Amino acid sequence: MPTAPFDWIEAQARQRRAAGLVRTLRPRAHDARRLDLAGNDYLGLARHPEVTAAAGAAARLWGAGSTGSRLVTGTTELHTRLEHELAAFCGATAALVFSSGYAANLAAVTSLAPHGSLIVSDADNHASLIDGCRLARGTTRVVPHADPAAVRKALAGHGGPALVVCDSVFSVDGDAMPLAALADACRAAGAGLLVDDAHGLGVLGDGGRGGPWSAGLAGADDTVTVVTLSKALGSQGGAVLGPARVIDHLVNTARTFFFDTGLAPAAAGAALAALRLLEREPDRPERTRAAALALHERLTAAGLTARRPAAAVVSVHAPSPEAAVRWAADCRAAGVEVGCFRPPSVPDGVSRLRLAARADLTEHDLERAVETVVRTAPR
Amino acid sequence: MPTAPFDWIEAQARQRRAAGLVRTLRPRAHDARRLDLAGNDYLGLARHPEVTAAAGAAARLWGAGSTGSRLVTGTTELHTRLEHELAAFCGATAALVFSSGYAANLAAVTSLAPHGSLIVSDADNHASLIDGCRLARGTTRVVPHADPAAVRKALAGHGGPALVVCDSVFSVDGDAMPLAALADACRAAGAGLLVDDAHGLGVLGDGGRGGPWSAGLAGADDTVTVVTLSKALGSQGGAVLGPARVIDHLVNTARTFFFDTGLAPAAAGAALAALRLLEREPDRPERTRAAALALHERLTAAGLTARRPAAAVVSVHAPSPEAAVRWAADCRAAGVEVGCFRPPSVPDGVSRLRLAARADLTEHDLERAVETVVRTAPR
Repeated sequence: MPTAPFDWIEAQARQRRAAGLVRTLRPRAHDARRLDLAGNDYLGLARHPEVTAAAGAAARLWGAGSTGSRLVTGTTELHTRLEHELAAFCGATAALVFSSGYAANLAAVTSLAPHGSLIVSDADNHASLIDGCRLARGTTRVVPHADPAAVRKALAGHGGPALVVCDSVFSVDGDAMPLAALADACRAAGAGLLVDDAHGLGVLGDGGRGGPWSAGLAGADDTVTVVTLSKALGSQGGAVLGPARVIDHLVNTARTFFFDTGLAPAAAGAALAALRLLEREPDRPERTRAAALALHERLTAAGLTARRPAAAVVSVHAPSPEAAVRWAADCRAAGVEVGCFRPPSVPDGVSRLRLAARADLTEHDLERAVETVVRTAPR
Repeated sequence: MPTAPFDWIEAQARQRRAAGLVRTLRPRAHDARRLDLAGNDYLGLARHPEVTAAAGAAARLWGAGSTGSRLVTGTTELHTRLEHELAAFCGATAALVFSSGYAANLAAVTSLAPHGSLIVSDADNHASLIDGCRLARGTTRVVPHADPAAVRKALAGHGGPALVVCDSVFSVDGDAMPLAALADACRAAGAGLLVDDAHGLGVLGDGGRGGPWSAGLAGADDTVTVVTLSKALGSQGGAVLGPARVIDHLVNTARTFFFDTGLAPAAAGAALAALRLLEREPDRPERTRAAALALHERLTAAGLTARRPAAAVVSVHAPSPEAAVRWAADCRAAGVEVGCFRPPSVPDGVSRLRLAARADLTEHDLERAVETVVRTAPR
């Protein structure tokens, strides 16, 4: 007699409960009075009236959905405008917008690592880059985290196309990849470089032009950048930026481009409005970085363990998954929303509170956040 | 001396040009006067004023983006409401919304096919199901298209968990999977069934409740359904519908749920408004199906080759990729937009025009479409 389908799920659920690793959804209300340090709205633009109005206007003008693959009816003149302005802002030649950063990363890795190629992937890369490596026809070698010398070694002796894949800023710990040194390692071996700048765009570089820009890689013909529209730009979606021939190649080969409905016009319109706001208010990135550094300084001065943030994310170590969950719940009860990262979402197994700075945090917000996190810390 | 990175792209581009398989983006204008038979807006709701107004209202109330993973700040009460109403409409116990149907399919397949499991996958499945199979830890066996007996044979003798994966309506050819017979085959072997109802929701079943509903599978504890919010519901996103324990399992294990920013509130709001419109106007699905059957009847009566449509999609065979491109361009020049499917986007290598019926097509629209497609047909 066969067992009932999906019965095996129960055993996994029991194991999660025993390990204190159960996740549940906590829907937020629209009028929440909390201080939000959990989201990735780094520039404080997701609720900006110009950005939300642009979302509504785009839906009215273009429709609520794009109605098809970007190659069929899913490309509007709005998508094209967003792509042009995004590429110009980041100093790239061309850009291609996807329905998510996840989809953009899957597209970039799979299309740029054909059969016979070598992919060198940082140990702490985002899940979407890892899934891209697993879907790609090339062979992946994982190298120690943020280690250009290890990349150089991994590339040595390989004959065919090679692609080095990494985040510019790592979401979990908030640290940065040394991109200039990494690009040197790639160039010495003739390898392409793919940088996921999800947490760099809008925060790093001149006016928020991102990690590759600040490393002098903007417009390089051997570098491809992925950005998200859902973090600093407060919307939804992702984009690949790079040389025109690379973008053209993605249009012709990327499965998550072909076979996915195009980004909704509302999301494209909101991202475009946020980008224009960022260009008009170029001090927002600096305010975000200053807020992150202030959080880090005050939390570590109070005895907590956190790495110096490279961009907006400050990650505070917790002694265990259970302690992290309790800590985050205590912060929430005090009106301060923080992220709680636990296995399997952390590459090193260390549970953390994750605080994301925003450009619109006031001195009072910072004080309240630090006081709350320190007071509720596990002893 | 190493070659320059991405030089290998040129050779592939040359091959594509030689084979007549180059793709380029054709941005559409918002005031285009064309008759659109290329998009997947099956119920004609993407531009419905209630739907687009709901997108704008949601952006204003909740923000332009959801600002984080659904497990952090990316779940709003709006997402929860959409999940409840979607599940109730389709007769499922629970639902989980994703940023795209692609992401929902990756999540469902990978989370429901653990190490040691068998995946039985239809030969004509959508790319997102295929990528899900490639990412899953289970072993995939591909079976001939729409063949429950072949599925039964593939499942025979397998000991561990097994998952059968298929579309309800196939996007390229518009034909349907015999779901009831397939479910029998699954049940005989104790296998779970995962149905991608992207092209069934809103078109098939009582009031548009979808393919699994019309096959008597709604609410079954061994069946999981994936739907898109970007086709009949005119918005963006996807959702997995199924037993509560399956949805809970996805919340705890699906990488495209954990590591992706939640669906933008505008898209969730638009999909919810479309769903409510569909409930209020339950004759829309019937009008869509009637329009598709009328297109098929008139086109085949004129001597063209097309399969009888199971839902909204009518697929007309073309003699070659070049002929298909020229045919679609001639239709476009006459003001009728049709889809053009060519390798590698077609499982059988046959190039096609793809016409999607809509609930709001008039008799005049149908006449114009048929006249144009027949007049421009390659001889």
